[in-house]
Amino acid sequence: MTGSTNLTSDRAALVTVRARPFNAETPPAALREPVTPADAHYVRSNFDLPEHDGSVHVTGEVERPLTLALDDLRALPASTLRVTLECAGNGRAGMAPLPTGEPWLGTAVATAEWTGARLADVLARVEPTPEGIEVAFAGADHGPYKGGPDTTFERSLPLALAGDPGNDILLAYTMNGEPLTPDHGAPVRLVVPGWYGMASVKWLSTIEVLTGQFEGQFQTRSYVYEWLDGEREAVTTERVRAIITDPAPGDVLAPGRHEVRGWAWSGTGPVTAVEVSIDGAGEWRPVDVEPPTEPYAWQAWSFAWDVAEPARHVLRARATDAAGATQPDIPPWNRLGYGNNAVQVVVVDVK
Amino acid sequence: MTGSTNLTSDRAALVTVRARPFNAETPPAALREPVTPADAHYVRSNFDLPEHDGSVHVTGEVERPLTLALDDLRALPASTLRVTLECAGNGRAGMAPLPTGEPWLGTAVATAEWTGARLADVLARVEPTPEGIEVAFAGADHGPYKGGPDTTFERSLPLALAGDPGNDILLAYTMNGEPLTPDHGAPVRLVVPGWYGMASVKWLSTIEVLTGQFEGQFQTRSYVYEWLDGEREAVTTERVRAIITDPAPGDVLAPGRHEVRGWAWSGTGPVTAVEVSIDGAGEWRPVDVEPPTEPYAWQAWSFAWDVAEPARHVLRARATDAAGATQPDIPPWNRLGYGNNAVQVVVVDVK
Repeated sequence: MTGSTNLTSDRAALVTVRARPFNAETPPAALREPVTPADAHYVRSNFDLPEHDGSVHVTGEVERPLTLALDDLRALPASTLRVTLECAGNGRAGMAPLPTGEPWLGTAVATAEWTGARLADVLARVEPTPEGIEVAFAGADHGPYKGGPDTTFERSLPLALAGDPGNDILLAYTMNGEPLTPDHGAPVRLVVPGWYGMASVKWLSTIEVLTGQFEGQFQTRSYVYEWLDGEREAVTTERVRAIITDPAPGDVLAPGRHEVRGWAWSGTGPVTAVEVSIDGAGEWRPVDVEPPTEPYAWQAWSFAWDVAEPARHVLRARATDAAGATQPDIPPWNRLGYGNNAVQVVVVDVK
Repeated sequence: MTGSTNLTSDRAALVTVRARPFNAETPPAALREPVTPADAHYVRSNFDLPEHDGSVHVTGEVERPLTLALDDLRALPASTLRVTLECAGNGRAGMAPLPTGEPWLGTAVATAEWTGARLADVLARVEPTPEGIEVAFAGADHGPYKGGPDTTFERSLPLALAGDPGNDILLAYTMNGEPLTPDHGAPVRLVVPGWYGMASVKWLSTIEVLTGQFEGQFQTRSYVYEWLDGEREAVTTERVRAIITDPAPGDVLAPGRHEVRGWAWSGTGPVTAVEVSIDGAGEWRPVDVEPPTEPYAWQAWSFAWDVAEPARHVLRARATDAAGATQPDIPPWNRLGYGNNAVQVVVVDVK
């Protein structure tokens, strides 16, 4: 276990999906806030909470291997970024047939402010050799995996991306201004803005520069889209998506004017449009979207809905990003159930 | 308005989908009973409650037109049948993109015991001429429809079916042993077992034998499958379907043994198998199904689920009927949103 912890209180606000290893969704009400409190931020774990020795070991194809204690990381220039993280399996329970994996309903997403050293700065200090092309990141978490041998959670990024001073990848040691909690990767984790959460390795223990492609379990077997046509594709950036935070599903509203609102985000560019559909029939109306002042955080959208008729109503919201990506009506089915960014449906009753 | 009524108490137990005309779902808890109380039976109306003159007029291509008062119908041999009726639009809210029409979530289904005269007996009394090929049934309900002129709710059946002494179509005047309530078609309605509810014309007013196909609004424009490939197909019999009544969605269960149960029905033959899947992964296990002792009523199914792991679990149930029809994973999308018999998903948390 890492640091002093009170797991019971850390976890009390969350919606548990699996007790061990601990996996839990953000409670829907917490999604109304622009920044999600740490104790309401969804948690994805592949293994039980690990021990962590307090240092990050930077090794492999580098001129000057380094071990960085937490104070060494704190001594580097710090950046703070507001980042919307989403689990790649968010919405899996909405796919049919149901893929294996945690049955996330749709709130395995949250936004926090992360502070840390910049990955590019760390890599510059160790000086990768010309042979280095890939960077693997190992968490301290490990254990038997799907009946197989002891496996460590490891992910990689191309060195061209990881070492680029223009990227915003962090070795984060605070979340919303506080030290990381055990469930969020204490004492230090990677935060890869715009990518699904699996890239943001928690309990970061080792950074290793490699001369070839990394082919670990969580890089090439898990976190891969296996499409129906047999194509395999790496799971990388967050697919464009809007959520409706108000009203909540099943709300009973009085006739009148109601503010319909929510968030929209994408890993492939700022959200440029959100449209809303009331009661189907193929009609979409554009609504107001906040400009992308924080490049990696969800953007607020809203509209004033005047509803007179006492009846059940069906609300849907659909986002489009600067790359032209837009949300599908039907979940994009793949064998392991990743990247379900199908349009959300919220049913409310007006009485 | 028909007869003495207390609409407020008749409707208090239902889940309203639209206030006017009144449309409401069966409350999920009421689906646990083999026979649904009248005040918990879903209600589908296309128009406001009509006046009804208390008689059924049998006319058209017949040798002996007749007007049958309620007492005349009661004087004919009576049959009682237990019948599962389902709205053709049941589950429409689960289709994407969302079709127009009432957004039924999935409980626009119920089972009642209907008593009445047999349609074949009534038709035998009026003696259709050899030119008669179709029988139209008009309800007393009417009104402006979708911005168009005054329209009456009318449906038809082939005379070969309607007049066949072997069919079990009723002119029903009691429901669960009591006179019909206004919402269920008082004083008399058609009950067409095995067909979606639109065939069971409420507030039955006129039966007319025709020499050609009937082409009314509710026969040829509403209640038609308009498939994505452009094919049009009449909505007729209920598609095979299973529902899970225990546990209920969102239930929190203790680890241990739980009885999982529900109903299954089909308009194309008795249900011959129900399979259950826990947590996906493509695995289906057959479970016990009650034999079809009542030919037109849902059949009970159940299995004992031993669950130890504190985690979210995803239950699905899938029925197959004697005709070999089985339920799809994905809703069979059609423009007006009928016949969604996709496998139901129930998510529960074990703690």
